[in-house]
Amino acid sequence: MSATPAMDALEDRFRRLSALAGAEGVLGWDQRVVMPKGGAEARAEQLATLSVLHHEILTAPAVAEALDAASTEPLDGWRAANLLEMRRRHAHATAVSAGLVEALSRAGSRCEALWREARAKADFGIVRAALTEQVRLVREEAAAKADALATTPYEALLDGYEPGGSIARIEALFAELEGDLPPLLEAVLERQESREPATAPSGPFPVAAQRTLAQRVMTTLGFDFNHGRLDETLHPFCGGVPDDVRITTRYDEAGFVSGIMGVIHETGHALYERGLPGDWRHQPVGEARGMVMHESQSLLMEMQACRSPAFLGLLSGWAREAFASDGQAWDPENLHRVYTRVERSFIRVEADEITYPLHVILRTRLERALLSGDLDVAELPAEWNAGMRDLLGVTPPNDALGCLQDIHWYDRAIGYFPTYTLGAMAAAQLFQAAVAADPAIPEAIGRGDFAPLLGWLGVHVHGRASSLGTEEILQAATGSTLSAGPFLAHLKARYLDA
Amino acid sequence: MSATPAMDALEDRFRRLSALAGAEGVLGWDQRVVMPKGGAEARAEQLATLSVLHHEILTAPAVAEALDAASTEPLDGWRAANLLEMRRRHAHATAVSAGLVEALSRAGSRCEALWREARAKADFGIVRAALTEQVRLVREEAAAKADALATTPYEALLDGYEPGGSIARIEALFAELEGDLPPLLEAVLERQESREPATAPSGPFPVAAQRTLAQRVMTTLGFDFNHGRLDETLHPFCGGVPDDVRITTRYDEAGFVSGIMGVIHETGHALYERGLPGDWRHQPVGEARGMVMHESQSLLMEMQACRSPAFLGLLSGWAREAFASDGQAWDPENLHRVYTRVERSFIRVEADEITYPLHVILRTRLERALLSGDLDVAELPAEWNAGMRDLLGVTPPNDALGCLQDIHWYDRAIGYFPTYTLGAMAAAQLFQAAVAADPAIPEAIGRGDFAPLLGWLGVHVHGRASSLGTEEILQAATGSTLSAGPFLAHLKARYLDA
Repeated sequence: MSATPAMDALEDRFRRLSALAGAEGVLGWDQRVVMPKGGAEARAEQLATLSVLHHEILTAPAVAEALDAASTEPLDGWRAANLLEMRRRHAHATAVSAGLVEALSRAGSRCEALWREARAKADFGIVRAALTEQVRLVREEAAAKADALATTPYEALLDGYEPGGSIARIEALFAELEGDLPPLLEAVLERQESREPATAPSGPFPVAAQRTLAQRVMTTLGFDFNHGRLDETLHPFCGGVPDDVRITTRYDEAGFVSGIMGVIHETGHALYERGLPGDWRHQPVGEARGMVMHESQSLLMEMQACRSPAFLGLLSGWAREAFASDGQAWDPENLHRVYTRVERSFIRVEADEITYPLHVILRTRLERALLSGDLDVAELPAEWNAGMRDLLGVTPPNDALGCLQDIHWYDRAIGYFPTYTLGAMAAAQLFQAAVAADPAIPEAIGRGDFAPLLGWLGVHVHGRASSLGTEEILQAATGSTLSAGPFLAHLKARYLDA
Repeated sequence: MSATPAMDALEDRFRRLSALAGAEGVLGWDQRVVMPKGGAEARAEQLATLSVLHHEILTAPAVAEALDAASTEPLDGWRAANLLEMRRRHAHATAVSAGLVEALSRAGSRCEALWREARAKADFGIVRAALTEQVRLVREEAAAKADALATTPYEALLDGYEPGGSIARIEALFAELEGDLPPLLEAVLERQESREPATAPSGPFPVAAQRTLAQRVMTTLGFDFNHGRLDETLHPFCGGVPDDVRITTRYDEAGFVSGIMGVIHETGHALYERGLPGDWRHQPVGEARGMVMHESQSLLMEMQACRSPAFLGLLSGWAREAFASDGQAWDPENLHRVYTRVERSFIRVEADEITYPLHVILRTRLERALLSGDLDVAELPAEWNAGMRDLLGVTPPNDALGCLQDIHWYDRAIGYFPTYTLGAMAAAQLFQAAVAADPAIPEAIGRGDFAPLLGWLGVHVHGRASSLGTEEILQAATGSTLSAGPFLAHLKARYLDA
């Protein structure tokens, strides 16, 4: 007989939950990528039903008993970490009623569908009521979870994306950025003015050629098309399950620049998923650590590895082949200027490394205010525009370029935004540690050989999954917990000293 | 307070089951249409989990109690029919254990994946063991259901596809066909020999042009792309849910003939799904009646409406446009010869109307023998080939053209095949009744106006959903239960008298 019967039963139950989550992942992918509009109501019903079942299985009375019993069983390190993760999920789930879970799922599906229309028509009014209702429900959820987790409502939501995330840590790290970034931005823009301007390669760039190039880049980075797909959506994302990771992109025939970096970004997410330890598939401890770590993996590929002169040299040749075009705009030096161009602009996902954190700081501020009730949904467009003026010095001409640009809040994700910038910091910290450990990495990247980098990430990040916390993974991998230093050093080196 | 509390509770439960079935439908579509091969294991896990949950919800002790209680409640006609359907499903589900359901789901996913490989390599050996295991499990399932439903094992499986289907009825109807078809086939082939041969339009037919033409035909027939999709798979099927119906086809650049008729066939299925009564969405009584009725709707479109000279006149002009080609092969008279060409051939899905029932008679015979144990899976290829020789006078040169050609047995569908030919009979019977009721239908079809036909089908078939049995629907719509007469009359009129 097993010495760990309670833990065995929990592992069976969580294996079932993992399959259910996988099903939800595929349905969500389908909803965004291929579902016809008229299928929305039926899909909302399906997702709501799976979500309720998930909740029922996770909150069944037997779980609480088994969690208690398992804590007295002899568990090794990974299983002990697995139990911790189970506890965390159970606490989140039992905090909210089945009725609220279902209402959130329905409101989310409705709101997301209306957001698509609102964004297309640049008309916030279309989604205002649905977002108001959704924020109301999320406040309820946050209050209930704050009680259960003995934390603040915002941190209770944050914990769902970044386990153990602390608002005090975020405030301290963001304060450092708010202090350093504005003068850095001024200096970089001034320097940029005085130097040769970047020349964007001129299109059109046929979608088929972009797709072929994207597949070539993905394969080089280590993406396995036998275990994943590349498709098209308005808002790129990485979905699916570790053995079937699906990323999306949008192709713009007029502009090639941001598209390929978007693909690299999502590929970074996908490589993390694929690199999770096979032995722990379908268990909480085998999943990605959280959104900070996830974003660190996408930004490490996009910002650290692939905007390097070494990789841009490679990309230069490939792009010339793909588009059968041979202008000077494809010279690696020019591409580097293109890919390190800094600008005060409206769209977060197209922002450069220096202004990006300012977008995130604004969103973090606004979502905290939405959650606390200090900000009404009706006032969101005006507050957004005022914040853009203050932080970035630009005012969006319409809401499609303003508060309708991101899917997050319309898809129930409040408490998520800070992880982008924490992830950018972690990316710089990890990449510097990887290169310190293996100085041959940059040169290998220039040859299209990502194996050394991927090998290091496999050991120090991907393979650790959720067996440690975010800060513990960083400490073990880099010798330090999360810090703004490596990120700011990276920005200075790339944008002022290079 | 409601006068029907037990029935209310059942309707809630079955609404949840319908959403779960919808989710399974989308996952199944994804598995066949877009899933990368490496995702197979994870998908099998997801489908098995949903299938177990479905089974648990349907077999919970509360259901049996509610079914009993509801039978004493005041229910109107549709709700009473709904209760009957619930009972039938409950009886099927309680007959088999959760363990067997899960084993069947897993074996099915594995076997289907291996079938794809086996068929591609024309190597039955690849799938032999998996099919043997699957047949073993299906035998277990059939035996258990036969006990529960007090019927024979084969009819117990048949009932899952065609509620109330009787092997005695099938034997009688098939005997009539076995008597009439061979001499009819001889006569038709002889007549065909003596007349101008059909000239197949010559390709290549670019996939993009075929797709555009397919969409035009689908729209003309009444398919709503806001509530459905057209995609590509090896084995065409109709999946999804009524508000998001997804059909597939395969394009052959070398041949245009069978592809477009395949699309019309699946569109017939899709129109049935879309035409089901919106008021009864998510309830058993609101679903399609069964596979005989379903196949009657696809064959009514494909064989009755769209192989008519009237429709082929329309198609002729559209095809000339689509392929920018103007040869004589596109003349309506020649197209009619192409689309009514009769041949002793290997592949059921490409067979003509006259030989098709002979394929089905063989499969029915073989699957009954597989189920009873009279036939070993290892002997299947040889038995198949012997049967083809006897019934059709041809011997498949390899198993890809033989027993590997159909997905059914490899996807757990035993007891399904007879419904194709019963459906062909029902199609002829229904079309003749529709034209008798509204003699303007053929001419409207020639103008691309399917509204009169669809209107009649909406009232007499689609809108009735499962409120009546198959034979009752036919009786009400045509004045007679299912009969071979109209089908044989149709064949004689089209192939001998025209």
